[in-house]
Amino acid sequence: MSKVNLEDIQKLREITSMGMMDCKKALEEANGDIEKAIDLLRKKGAAVAAKRGGNSTSQGLVHSYIHPGGTVGVLVEINCETDFVARNEEFKKFAQDVCMHIAALKPVYLSPSEVDAAWLEKEKNFLNEQLIAEGKKPEFIEKILEGKIQKALSEVCLLQQKFVKNDKLTTEQVLQELIGKVGESIKIRRFARYEIGA
Amino acid sequence: MSKVNLEDIQKLREITSMGMMDCKKALEEANGDIEKAIDLLRKKGAAVAAKRGGNSTSQGLVHSYIHPGGTVGVLVEINCETDFVARNEEFKKFAQDVCMHIAALKPVYLSPSEVDAAWLEKEKNFLNEQLIAEGKKPEFIEKILEGKIQKALSEVCLLQQKFVKNDKLTTEQVLQELIGKVGESIKIRRFARYEIGA
Repeated sequence: MSKVNLEDIQKLREITSMGMMDCKKALEEANGDIEKAIDLLRKKGAAVAAKRGGNSTSQGLVHSYIHPGGTVGVLVEINCETDFVARNEEFKKFAQDVCMHIAALKPVYLSPSEVDAAWLEKEKNFLNEQLIAEGKKPEFIEKILEGKIQKALSEVCLLQQKFVKNDKLTTEQVLQELIGKVGESIKIRRFARYEIGA
Repeated sequence: MSKVNLEDIQKLREITSMGMMDCKKALEEANGDIEKAIDLLRKKGAAVAAKRGGNSTSQGLVHSYIHPGGTVGVLVEINCETDFVARNEEFKKFAQDVCMHIAALKPVYLSPSEVDAAWLEKEKNFLNEQLIAEGKKPEFIEKILEGKIQKALSEVCLLQQKFVKNDKLTTEQVLQELIGKVGESIKIRRFARYEIGA
């Protein structure tokens, strides 16, 4: 455990915004390897998220972003468990970042479960015909199709998209990190994105 | 025509925001009666609205309003024909007023044509049973029902609601006045209203 020094703990805190003790523990568990410690903290965030997932989220924030000139506008509602977290700066920053993300990356749905079945069917047929036209063997088509559908979903679903401010993580992973940090359940409930002429 | 004085013209301009010449003509036509002149200008606005109704509205503004504390938020898209009108102060003010209206009066639909058929059917059945329970004669029920349905629609549809800043007019009438003033077609295209816990 001698490998853990204060400098690394502080560095880890800056990267993950987790508490001092959490960072120290993660570094000890990772034998001083910062990359490994980040992974551990991320997993901890996801575990908290899973544990808190069932809790009622009746508080929160409605936040908006209007593009200069008023040609694009976004409205988002993000829920949490307590008013205390709704007023937390980190939570507000996340709401603002999600708005910017939606403005830039134009998600259509929140998650795959919301995707319009007719759209998905059309997309599947289109991709299937494309694969046949490319001469792919029938035994491979299903597998390739599955991957392509996942990719298409990750392009239209907010939670599956790579986050605008950190493209190493999806929006869902960034959300889970935030849940790990604040220690209560947080949900993006709904969003709207209006664009003039679109 | 001697009854028209500059003072009345200016008064009329303040009330309707229409041009000097329009106000003068309306006052002349109304023989100096300001109330009548307001009606004439209002009709003129509606006539312009009808004439411009078919024109393409591909420009506009997306505008938002967030209630202090972030518990209620509104996003609205208002379209017009030219970028010039979209940058007009009167147009911007209307967008802001519509946002405040939606925040306060909680419309669910834009217009009756958007109303969910299942909701309307349920509402009709409920009102019908109520009238029968009240002992209303069957020959009157249909007539009363029609009036009650219109009232219910005017409570949930943005365009039919009494405007928050002037409850003598509906949102649609205020919109028509604005069309009369700026002389091009304007449409409220869509809106969203999110409220925490609702």
